[in-house]
Amino acid sequence: MVRAVTEITDADDERIAPFSAIREKDLVGRRGLFIAEGTVVLRVLAEAHRAGGPFSADRILVLENRLAGVADILETFPDDVPVFTCRSEVMNRIAGFDMHRGVLALGRIGRQPTTAELIARLPDDALVAVAIGLSNHDNAGGIFRNATAFGADAVLLDSTSCDPLYRKALRVSVGSVLKMPWSRQGEARDILAELAGAGFQVVTLSPSGEVPLHAVERARRTALVLGTEGEGLPADILKSFRPVRIPQSPGLDSLNVSTAAGIALYQLALLKGRIA
Amino acid sequence: MVRAVTEITDADDERIAPFSAIREKDLVGRRGLFIAEGTVVLRVLAEAHRAGGPFSADRILVLENRLAGVADILETFPDDVPVFTCRSEVMNRIAGFDMHRGVLALGRIGRQPTTAELIARLPDDALVAVAIGLSNHDNAGGIFRNATAFGADAVLLDSTSCDPLYRKALRVSVGSVLKMPWSRQGEARDILAELAGAGFQVVTLSPSGEVPLHAVERARRTALVLGTEGEGLPADILKSFRPVRIPQSPGLDSLNVSTAAGIALYQLALLKGRIA
Repeated sequence: MVRAVTEITDADDERIAPFSAIREKDLVGRRGLFIAEGTVVLRVLAEAHRAGGPFSADRILVLENRLAGVADILETFPDDVPVFTCRSEVMNRIAGFDMHRGVLALGRIGRQPTTAELIARLPDDALVAVAIGLSNHDNAGGIFRNATAFGADAVLLDSTSCDPLYRKALRVSVGSVLKMPWSRQGEARDILAELAGAGFQVVTLSPSGEVPLHAVERARRTALVLGTEGEGLPADILKSFRPVRIPQSPGLDSLNVSTAAGIALYQLALLKGRIA
Repeated sequence: MVRAVTEITDADDERIAPFSAIREKDLVGRRGLFIAEGTVVLRVLAEAHRAGGPFSADRILVLENRLAGVADILETFPDDVPVFTCRSEVMNRIAGFDMHRGVLALGRIGRQPTTAELIARLPDDALVAVAIGLSNHDNAGGIFRNATAFGADAVLLDSTSCDPLYRKALRVSVGSVLKMPWSRQGEARDILAELAGAGFQVVTLSPSGEVPLHAVERARRTALVLGTEGEGLPADILKSFRPVRIPQSPGLDSLNVSTAAGIALYQLALLKGRIA
């Protein structure tokens, strides 16, 4: 069965208007929409759509010469998700996004669980990543990718962290933002207090931490807390929870926060017997 | 003492020509020059220049309103390295590079050691990272940053890998490309054969590897071998050396190669007692 596809010949056609003109900030923030880009993310969006969770597909736009390559993915979307196609001349006229990948979908954000709901739903043996003041979309995507690789149960971001549904973050996450349970709300202190109250061992990561990562003791529930790029975690948070360091050679900058998350989640997942 | 600084008022001034017009490919490949960008890399370039190794500074261009912020770094360059400054109107007219950081240096590539020379110089107890067919500059920079963080002795790239002196790679490496001994030449098989001949335990990384990373045995000399993004290492290399996997949850894509390098180097450095 071949999926019905509508050709667009006019870059100003309003059916593809959401892909152009609108600034991403307005799209994600005010309209509850997001842009999914590339084959890998499109495949995850199709799974998320069928699973009936908070993220669904609104419409899809594929460059004509990329259609054959994604035909199998397009067939997994229900018929009420329209698929549009256009030639590169039209694609190139659509402003606002860098379209060179030629595979785009407009996603819709439904009701996401609150942080309290997410914590309440966590299994008895749990591993979560918490990001405080994360400002870089690449790092946000990288943290989701690593959390997924090491089987974390959720990612909790405070309200000052950037939105992982931004195009770049979503792409770097290889779509895992659409699968991993997550929330982005509230203050750092409140999130950590709630986790501690729910029996979590709170592992704050800092280059100046006293405890080396490999000396962290096994716990039933563990939360790994990551700070902002450059500044790291606020001093009062580091004072409240015994900070842990990834041992490394002196000199230069510390590790990138997404890489640090990967290393710490690897070590914690190993400790908890989640990977072997 | 205040460093002498020459103001440039014309974007076509030939003293700043190397920062514009020339495509980076030609600059790095044919002319033996590279662009260092931002405060962090400028500081490392100053150290490399003073150390008298293969990398030196040719000239520096700093946006007028950034001068005060980098004054302490500029003073550490010898007087025969000219420092130019300009206003943002002039900086914006310089094409070819994204100049928003406002701190640029032109670097000069001297004679680098060959792969054989590098291997011959390695200490008795050694840890090196080897990259085969690496194509992404962000990942190249990330691998250097991680190799530095975990005290690796050298990074060996095969001739098909991308150049770590490209602006983006150098920036992501936080300048470590200018400090870490490295080479980029030869075929993968020859490099690995040479390492094996020099008594190296060759650890090839692959998602399908039989041995989990934490089960690798301690060896006096260890080489971690990383494959190209997407494809991974060629089958014949994986067949010749027992491949090692970073254990992870099933599903989605495998880890990003720079993150995988970080995790593996962390584990190997720990095993070898290089970090604690």
